[in-house]
Amino acid sequence: MPTNKGFVLASRPGPGAKARVENFELFERPAPEPGPGQVLVRHEYLSLDPYMRGRMDDVKSYAASQPLGEPMIGGTVGEVVGSKNARFAVGDKVVGMGGWQLYSLDDGSMLRKIEPKDIPIQAWLGPMGMPGVTAWYGVNRIIAPKAGETLVVSAATGAVGSAVGQLANAAGARAVGIAGGPEKCAYAVDILGFDACVDHRAENFDVLLKEAAPAGIDGLFENVGGKCFDACSRRLNTFARIAICGLIASYQGAETSSLGDLRIVLVKRARIEGFIVFDHLPLWPQALVELGALIVAGRLHWRETVAEGVEAAPAAFLGLLEGRNFGKQLVKLR
Amino acid sequence: MPTNKGFVLASRPGPGAKARVENFELFERPAPEPGPGQVLVRHEYLSLDPYMRGRMDDVKSYAASQPLGEPMIGGTVGEVVGSKNARFAVGDKVVGMGGWQLYSLDDGSMLRKIEPKDIPIQAWLGPMGMPGVTAWYGVNRIIAPKAGETLVVSAATGAVGSAVGQLANAAGARAVGIAGGPEKCAYAVDILGFDACVDHRAENFDVLLKEAAPAGIDGLFENVGGKCFDACSRRLNTFARIAICGLIASYQGAETSSLGDLRIVLVKRARIEGFIVFDHLPLWPQALVELGALIVAGRLHWRETVAEGVEAAPAAFLGLLEGRNFGKQLVKLR
Repeated sequence: MPTNKGFVLASRPGPGAKARVENFELFERPAPEPGPGQVLVRHEYLSLDPYMRGRMDDVKSYAASQPLGEPMIGGTVGEVVGSKNARFAVGDKVVGMGGWQLYSLDDGSMLRKIEPKDIPIQAWLGPMGMPGVTAWYGVNRIIAPKAGETLVVSAATGAVGSAVGQLANAAGARAVGIAGGPEKCAYAVDILGFDACVDHRAENFDVLLKEAAPAGIDGLFENVGGKCFDACSRRLNTFARIAICGLIASYQGAETSSLGDLRIVLVKRARIEGFIVFDHLPLWPQALVELGALIVAGRLHWRETVAEGVEAAPAAFLGLLEGRNFGKQLVKLR
Repeated sequence: MPTNKGFVLASRPGPGAKARVENFELFERPAPEPGPGQVLVRHEYLSLDPYMRGRMDDVKSYAASQPLGEPMIGGTVGEVVGSKNARFAVGDKVVGMGGWQLYSLDDGSMLRKIEPKDIPIQAWLGPMGMPGVTAWYGVNRIIAPKAGETLVVSAATGAVGSAVGQLANAAGARAVGIAGGPEKCAYAVDILGFDACVDHRAENFDVLLKEAAPAGIDGLFENVGGKCFDACSRRLNTFARIAICGLIASYQGAETSSLGDLRIVLVKRARIEGFIVFDHLPLWPQALVELGALIVAGRLHWRETVAEGVEAAPAAFLGLLEGRNFGKQLVKLR
């Protein structure tokens, strides 16, 4: 039996507090044998995503919180190395929710077979996975940008944001990013094709945002919240659509995310909609077909920050919450 | 020539300040003669509505502000008493935007002929007019309540709110009102058929709201804002829809209307949408057919507070902003 290794959640930081590496505890034990109907997957990559911070606390939310003492949840891609399930054979490449560990058992219900072909396998954790479908849903089903409209997205070079901007461009809209630092902003414009990108650390952020969106904001894809959201809410056009995807600025108490004056919504006849991509599973196949076509056509670029080895997961995750990653944060597990 | 009499806007209170009777100035002059294509209307009723407060200030909004020195805008019903327009004959009953005065001239573009039959003429300023269509749009096109869901509406006995609750009931939803004082609450339940109504002046308002909506809130039709909105936002169910129709608590600085924690929108996957009924003119005919059918069937009740004579308009309007009216606020002009 090979050895499984990974992290369980050992303690909860508490709502609004900073997560620490001590909240996670390394375990090491023999990989399990698949029972009847089960599949054993050896993970190649683990995905780290902001939503995990919410699961660490025991608060009422849209999902059950992460149980203490259990391996941290997380999206994974890997290969079937043992199967007592007729739908999966050894050697199959699969995407699933294997968690922060080298191996996982699954009854098959959470696994999807993938055919990597011309697309690197870890893309199923990025543009061909949850972040890509999240971008697709928010852009196409909530904001629905018309040609010539302006769409602003925060965390613009992240796994979701980078797809948002490129999908907006594909719809003929002006894509304006918000990102942390000149390097990310240059990447958004030069590589991802954003029409403009504003550094939220700049002292004159409000002025720069106005210059980047001179005709106002028709669509806002919000990943961050806090002062970025405030500034954008003051630049909304009539009939603006706001997709609330994440509020990472508030997950650890750094900034509050609020709408200080509801009259904006009334005067602008704006629509604000929160969403979770897992509520829309029937749309995933269509989204993945469209995302895959853009990737193969070279019209959907992305970037990865890859931490090496499962031991690196906690620090990489804390870095993600601080914006220290650049693009999709992965952990390479073998 | 008969004498026209009415009020012009003489001064602006300023955003967030209380309007005063001195902001309006009485005028008296001969009623005009209709020129080519024009219609002279003698008003029977003037409608007073919260939106007028916004027009009194010179701020960027969805509508042009009310010009100083001009008759205050306002919806009116009346009778054609002179016409040089082939579409209108003397004796026609019409609804229009004649303003705070006894007579108005119109080129016909803002006038609609009405056939009162079994419905009192002033209903075209209430359930068969802008307030009724406002309720219809917010209930049916934004909230779209399903049978068994709970819909909460503030200013529940007002011109809009009373129709909202009855339309919610017609859709099979539980209608919960919020109103000011026990008399209004009793009327909402006993006459309008609300399933419950909560007095926002009650000290234990939050507790009473929870009791009135024990299964949470699926739809919120917001006319008031302020602390009512706060309390409701804490009771939202997953996939809640919030129609922002008005925020009267904030029009004169009494309370701020804000969403203190945007995470509610994300966690509940809620949708918040501001709307103005005049953006949806193509839907008015359908709405009026449905509202008229409910009225004739005795399934849509309303109540009026009628001020007598045009001189009473300013004080009645200020009373409306303070919630001193009970039901639709009208001014009887003859």
